Amino acid sequence: MSVVRRLPRYYRFLLELKNNGVYRVSSQALAEKMGSSASQIRQDLHCFGGFGQQGYGYDVPKLADELGSILGLDNHFKAILLGAGNLGRAIINHVDFSSRGFTLTAVFDCDPGVIGTQINGMTVRDVGALKDYCTAEKPDAAVLCLPKESAEEMADILYDCGVRGFWNFSHYDLSMKYGDAVTENVHLNDSLMTLCCCMNASKENNQIASKPGKPRRKLSKPKGEA
Amino acid sequence: MSVVRRLPRYYRFLLELKNNGVYRVSSQALAEKMGSSASQIRQDLHCFGGFGQQGYGYDVPKLADELGSILGLDNHFKAILLGAGNLGRAIINHVDFSSRGFTLTAVFDCDPGVIGTQINGMTVRDVGALKDYCTAEKPDAAVLCLPKESAEEMADILYDCGVRGFWNFSHYDLSMKYGDAVTENVHLNDSLMTLCCCMNASKENNQIASKPGKPRRKLSKPKGEA
Repeated sequence: MSVVRRLPRYYRFLLELKNNGVYRVSSQALAEKMGSSASQIRQDLHCFGGFGQQGYGYDVPKLADELGSILGLDNHFKAILLGAGNLGRAIINHVDFSSRGFTLTAVFDCDPGVIGTQINGMTVRDVGALKDYCTAEKPDAAVLCLPKESAEEMADILYDCGVRGFWNFSHYDLSMKYGDAVTENVHLNDSLMTLCCCMNASKENNQIASKPGKPRRKLSKPKGEA
Repeated sequence: MSVVRRLPRYYRFLLELKNNGVYRVSSQALAEKMGSSASQIRQDLHCFGGFGQQGYGYDVPKLADELGSILGLDNHFKAILLGAGNLGRAIINHVDFSSRGFTLTAVFDCDPGVIGTQINGMTVRDVGALKDYCTAEKPDAAVLCLPKESAEEMADILYDCGVRGFWNFSHYDLSMKYGDAVTENVHLNDSLMTLCCCMNASKENNQIASKPGKPRRKLSKPKGEA
């Protein structure tokens, strides 16, 4: 896992410490809290300027602010969401866009039964008006909560309208098509298969432990992941 | 990213090829399709037994079946879901548990307005009956679609009842508490912050390109990720 993937997690833990009134933390204490190693933490944080001081540790509020700034959370990237089904609704209701660098400005769907309804104070718009909206409002990012087929078609339209950031929940690897766009794919099915794989390996290891003769299947375990 | 994280993606691409009637594929062709490198693919697949044959490539149906078996998708791990809000409903309605090694056997919530309602043919049960259910049915895994506070409490109960697999959507790092359980955390907020971070870096790089004097902020890019 790259440091860019670990950064949000550091930020999350440091913000919690900051909100609890903690002013400083050692790499060792942070490592214990995060289930990581002190040397990994020192190495990662060094990448971002090395704010730690020997015998003192890290200045929690300063480090949290600095990581937030590197994450770019002070941005107000305009985001729109496509697909107001259950997943889309869950994201609109529960994800706090504004504290993560985004402003959710519009929601679109193609279902006449959903268009015009309100979700968390936002009126669902007709996807037929998407192009006009994008031309006028120039959103930076799009959240795709669509089936694979629609995701591909909609992503083309959005890309042509200048959208260069995609938070993609459809079962389609968006990153491969638009090299100059930033994409974050969330593949829930892959995640469930990873869980299955690890539970299966754990089950097989337990069976082997009780039957010493059975050969062990080779399987590399994830490294450096919490 | 570890090979265990890449494995579901290989499986997904190979299954699509298999379902499209493709019988063999070279590492080069697979690499192009997946936005990876042929050497990475050969190296990864070699970990799982090296089924490739020089000048022929990989036997698609055989490799897909073998990867499915390593993933343990032929399991029927009993899973229950806690929290039938929008996210829980989205998962119940859209995730195909049975083709990913799981059988979703029960759904629980604490909201009297939700208990007793039907979601995709399943009746939502009262979370008060959770312990009795677990004692009788012995589920293997739990999907947690709960707020952070309830997730911690519920995870303790589930762990005590013998649940050793967690698909965790709450903002809480479950993996750190139960060392012998398998956990797959899905942190949507971290994912959104990663998107923000990459969009921010891309924005800064574009600004630097147009203003040659400005210093460039150091930021390691994710390596080996699609």
